[in-house]
Amino acid sequence: MVGPGKPIDTQRWFVICANSLGSCKGSTGPCTNDPATGKPYRLAFPELSIEDIAAGHQQLLNYLGIKQLAVGIGCSMGGMTALAHAALFERSARHGVMISSALRAEPFAIAIRSVQRQLVIADPHFNNGQYQQSKDVNSGMGLARKLGVISYRSAEEWRVRFARQRVKAPEAPSRQSDPFATEFEVERYLDGHASRWAGSFDPCSYIYLSRAMDWFDLSAHTGKPKFESALVVGVASDILFPLHQQQEIASFLINCGTPTQFAPLPSIQGHDAFLVDMENFGPTIAKYLAGVS
Amino acid sequence: MVGPGKPIDTQRWFVICANSLGSCKGSTGPCTNDPATGKPYRLAFPELSIEDIAAGHQQLLNYLGIKQLAVGIGCSMGGMTALAHAALFERSARHGVMISSALRAEPFAIAIRSVQRQLVIADPHFNNGQYQQSKDVNSGMGLARKLGVISYRSAEEWRVRFARQRVKAPEAPSRQSDPFATEFEVERYLDGHASRWAGSFDPCSYIYLSRAMDWFDLSAHTGKPKFESALVVGVASDILFPLHQQQEIASFLINCGTPTQFAPLPSIQGHDAFLVDMENFGPTIAKYLAGVS
Repeated sequence: MVGPGKPIDTQRWFVICANSLGSCKGSTGPCTNDPATGKPYRLAFPELSIEDIAAGHQQLLNYLGIKQLAVGIGCSMGGMTALAHAALFERSARHGVMISSALRAEPFAIAIRSVQRQLVIADPHFNNGQYQQSKDVNSGMGLARKLGVISYRSAEEWRVRFARQRVKAPEAPSRQSDPFATEFEVERYLDGHASRWAGSFDPCSYIYLSRAMDWFDLSAHTGKPKFESALVVGVASDILFPLHQQQEIASFLINCGTPTQFAPLPSIQGHDAFLVDMENFGPTIAKYLAGVS
Repeated sequence: MVGPGKPIDTQRWFVICANSLGSCKGSTGPCTNDPATGKPYRLAFPELSIEDIAAGHQQLLNYLGIKQLAVGIGCSMGGMTALAHAALFERSARHGVMISSALRAEPFAIAIRSVQRQLVIADPHFNNGQYQQSKDVNSGMGLARKLGVISYRSAEEWRVRFARQRVKAPEAPSRQSDPFATEFEVERYLDGHASRWAGSFDPCSYIYLSRAMDWFDLSAHTGKPKFESALVVGVASDILFPLHQQQEIASFLINCGTPTQFAPLPSIQGHDAFLVDMENFGPTIAKYLAGVS
């Protein structure tokens, strides 16, 4: 979606895609060395909030000498961050695009993330934060990812995509030898996601970022996000950041004085739709950005 | 719902409530002693299907000398069993009531159950079936139960019931001492369910019954369930046995020649509604049974 001629056209826009504070993909986080000990922080890393992540982004903008963004864009946790950034730093972005995001975490999403964190922490290899990374699909991180994928996609998509298809021989294990081994295609799909995730994302980063989302509640701020215009995009099949939460963001922005478009999309891929359904997301984003002066 | 003057009125009906083969609550199952070894079967218990459970019920009816049931009633897995029983044993029940059940397992439900089983099996205490029961809320069984509860209720119910309420002191742990400890009321609710479950249900029974549901597919049968009449009840907020699956059961029964009523209920408690929403379920069941001669 980002590139020359793409919905976010890099011939027109200069795109800054910043990592999140706390993440293991380039920012300071639990696997960064603590200067006081010379060893990774792990669970000694301080409490992390979405507002901390937004403040980190602002530091980056200050460093780059950017006074104001043309458009702040974020999906999921990134949308929470874009909202927090706009609330904390007045006029930090002229326009805003929030995709499959939320004003605050709801109990269903908190419950799912709570179980995911406990899966990671209960894994003996986690070792109270002094973990050895495991690539096992049924490690704490592997199982947390599987639960994540269940919450990121939709029952409707899987009905069409997997139905009751079985894994074909020779990969298929014998039901006699192990009735609980991977037998259905949907189970193999989850295994695939878990094996790509476990061992590649830092377990402590994972639980810190996860908890930051639970804590997020924009209504706790006295500062309100305000843009010249905004676009809010959501998907009806999303069970993690459901459509009514997108409607809530749009209503909230309108009440705060921002002319806001709300675009509910018919994607069947659930929360992950923004990663895969370019057919619906591409034109929606492109059209909005085309109208931004 | 069962008793004198209740929707299933024991002044009128003789109620037989049979345990399921494979369960640890009174039937032969993985924790029964294998006569060959004198020790519990555990994972040496043979493959278990919904059809096996239905055949077990038929054995009980034969033993009791009952040629035909007036009404076969089942919720969830019990509804699958009632359908299998009617398909396997012609005219074994004159009427049928299927509640929040399914003709076959769909991939979303298979995915959830697959992760639940892996949680149990990955727990070091499971010890390849030679487990020691753990009462820990974050044991494999505890975590599997939490995921179960997430799938059994609904986001809508929890929004109303828990919102973002925090656990109050003195029970509330300090966020500083452990940012990942139970903090939200919804997390405490999950802890409560897990602590009542872990240590009270047999882990091997759990995974055998769980897999039996994945395997169930009524279309694999040549025999079709046929009743004089049937009632199919479902709930719009159910994500595990969703409403379209109830509509499917009703259509299937009608195609097999059974006059069938379909009752979609507005309960917000999801799959578990049949356990708690007596206000909606009671009159629906009572009215149907009143019409049974």
